[in-house]
Amino acid sequence: MFTRNRLAAPPVVVARERLRSGRIQAVLVNTKSANAGTGRPGRERAIACCREVAGLLGIPERLVVPCSTGKIGLPLSRSKIHRGIRSAVAELSPAGFWNAAQAIRTTDAFPKIASRRVRVRGGEVVVAGMAKGAGMIHPRMATTLAYVLTDASVTARRLRPMLAAAVDRSFHAISVDGDTSTNDTVLLLASGASGLAPGAGSTDERRLAAAVAEVLLELAQMIVVDGEGASKLVEVRVRGARTRADADRAARAIANSMLVKAAFHGADPNWGRVACAVGYSGADVDPDRIAVAIGGVVLARGGTAVAAAAERKARRAMLGSRFDVEVDLGRGRAAATMWTSDLGTRYVRFNSAYSS
Amino acid sequence: MFTRNRLAAPPVVVARERLRSGRIQAVLVNTKSANAGTGRPGRERAIACCREVAGLLGIPERLVVPCSTGKIGLPLSRSKIHRGIRSAVAELSPAGFWNAAQAIRTTDAFPKIASRRVRVRGGEVVVAGMAKGAGMIHPRMATTLAYVLTDASVTARRLRPMLAAAVDRSFHAISVDGDTSTNDTVLLLASGASGLAPGAGSTDERRLAAAVAEVLLELAQMIVVDGEGASKLVEVRVRGARTRADADRAARAIANSMLVKAAFHGADPNWGRVACAVGYSGADVDPDRIAVAIGGVVLARGGTAVAAAAERKARRAMLGSRFDVEVDLGRGRAAATMWTSDLGTRYVRFNSAYSS
Repeated sequence: MFTRNRLAAPPVVVARERLRSGRIQAVLVNTKSANAGTGRPGRERAIACCREVAGLLGIPERLVVPCSTGKIGLPLSRSKIHRGIRSAVAELSPAGFWNAAQAIRTTDAFPKIASRRVRVRGGEVVVAGMAKGAGMIHPRMATTLAYVLTDASVTARRLRPMLAAAVDRSFHAISVDGDTSTNDTVLLLASGASGLAPGAGSTDERRLAAAVAEVLLELAQMIVVDGEGASKLVEVRVRGARTRADADRAARAIANSMLVKAAFHGADPNWGRVACAVGYSGADVDPDRIAVAIGGVVLARGGTAVAAAAERKARRAMLGSRFDVEVDLGRGRAAATMWTSDLGTRYVRFNSAYSS
Repeated sequence: MFTRNRLAAPPVVVARERLRSGRIQAVLVNTKSANAGTGRPGRERAIACCREVAGLLGIPERLVVPCSTGKIGLPLSRSKIHRGIRSAVAELSPAGFWNAAQAIRTTDAFPKIASRRVRVRGGEVVVAGMAKGAGMIHPRMATTLAYVLTDASVTARRLRPMLAAAVDRSFHAISVDGDTSTNDTVLLLASGASGLAPGAGSTDERRLAAAVAEVLLELAQMIVVDGEGASKLVEVRVRGARTRADADRAARAIANSMLVKAAFHGADPNWGRVACAVGYSGADVDPDRIAVAIGGVVLARGGTAVAAAAERKARRAMLGSRFDVEVDLGRGRAAATMWTSDLGTRYVRFNSAYSS
């Protein structure tokens, strides 16, 4: 899956073309230059890099895909990428997963990896993923890259819906700084090395899909926590919406609101900011029906505050590093979930000092 | 004009009802409590306050409208508002404009006023406005309130389109933190005190409308500059779009991008971030046609960089406190303009250090 930015970078265009066949064997990732806004020369440079990798690995060129993250408008340095390719190929090893996760970092505070073992007929397969992200405090290389690998044997045709569903509930359900990069890329690759092939539509396949979804959600949550100097991971659940789209709009507005995130940082059970975000989200809302709970404590019901004691209880829950926000719109049965963080930089201390 | 937030505060609901007649005579503004999320008691409190004002001024209650800004879910303090009303009425004077502009501030760094004199048949009328706003760094009371007064004699029916057009090109064309408050209110009031009535459809009326638009734009720009510890006012102009909606989407995406605003702060002519924002804006874009200029210096044409010398020139322009960003999509004839600021807090120093 690739960025929906209309100005997708040349490496994304090349990767998209090559993925169409459903078969690739190597992924080349570079940082510093996004190789975006580089026109035809950028495309040729991306292809030349893949050709070099293919030559060194002894595989067809079309099986190599390029991924770049970094500055837009800056050409890939021919000599640096050449040196990088040679050393990456020289260091290639089955134990290199961690090194790769380290190498793709740009301003990430920590490398992001997650894995699951999945029992299937005949044995066990592994799903392992790595990602890089970037939060508001580090937007200089804000591209999201994620690679999920499995040794199960699954065709591309079956991997695609698996990945789409998992991305929908992970990378598309987190709040970062909102800038969709020219280079965002999430790949799911199955090597078949285990020799185990979960049957189409089988329980094994559903288990594998669940593991892929879990790995991507774990990576996405790490990206949330790494962003913005965040210290809290907050699950935003909206229910009682008339439609799924309404639920999604409301959850997204809450998760993206600076005001809400600042309140999270200060452990301020400011349900009014949550309700305000729902109000401007575009979702169908009845002011007299909305209920808000934080950390499992109901703060507002029927659109008004319940009691000061509830605020004290909610505040205690908000002092932890992980809590939930639940909003019931009282309009229907649709629901949606998003993950977000507090806004935890120095500039926010001012805002979060506003206590209820 | 009032907030479009579905959870509009009780004072907004009351004000909207009273404005329907097209006649009001007094506006009561309070800070600290937004009187939002307060249900029926909130509505009754708002009405009671207006009744008190009406009694002291000796005017019908329906001619008083309430405006509140502050915390959601916090009831208006009966005793504080009572004291406030008595002292505000006692201090009422033709020279009180500045005091009122001061009094409606919450976290605004400075009071915001603007005015124009307009020559009309038979003499001169005045248009004077005051506003309070709040930027990203001060989101705790992020309500926008603005009041534009004129001594011209104009009916409400003719004032309404005048205000709508002016708001569209001012308050709706600035980038702040994106949280539409439950209490946003912009009023245009004509007293007729000058005894001068610009004829419907006359040049005088057009001049008056232009003055109203100028006053609102000046107030809106002050709100931009006051927000976020900003130090630069940036005019974003998009042209060559296929439709007006596309132009607006692209301009809005640029003006709201954290990455772009961080680059402004560092005087970094990072056209790639501007192009990236256009790319994800949803506007129809051709990667090979987009052109970007900053401070009058063309940095990219046909989707790729022009020359390093241009970046040096653009950087000099960006060191000033006011500059333009121009984007030509090369797809049509539609255009749009937005105003935004740099992101100038400490947290941004990190990002803006990323130099091209």
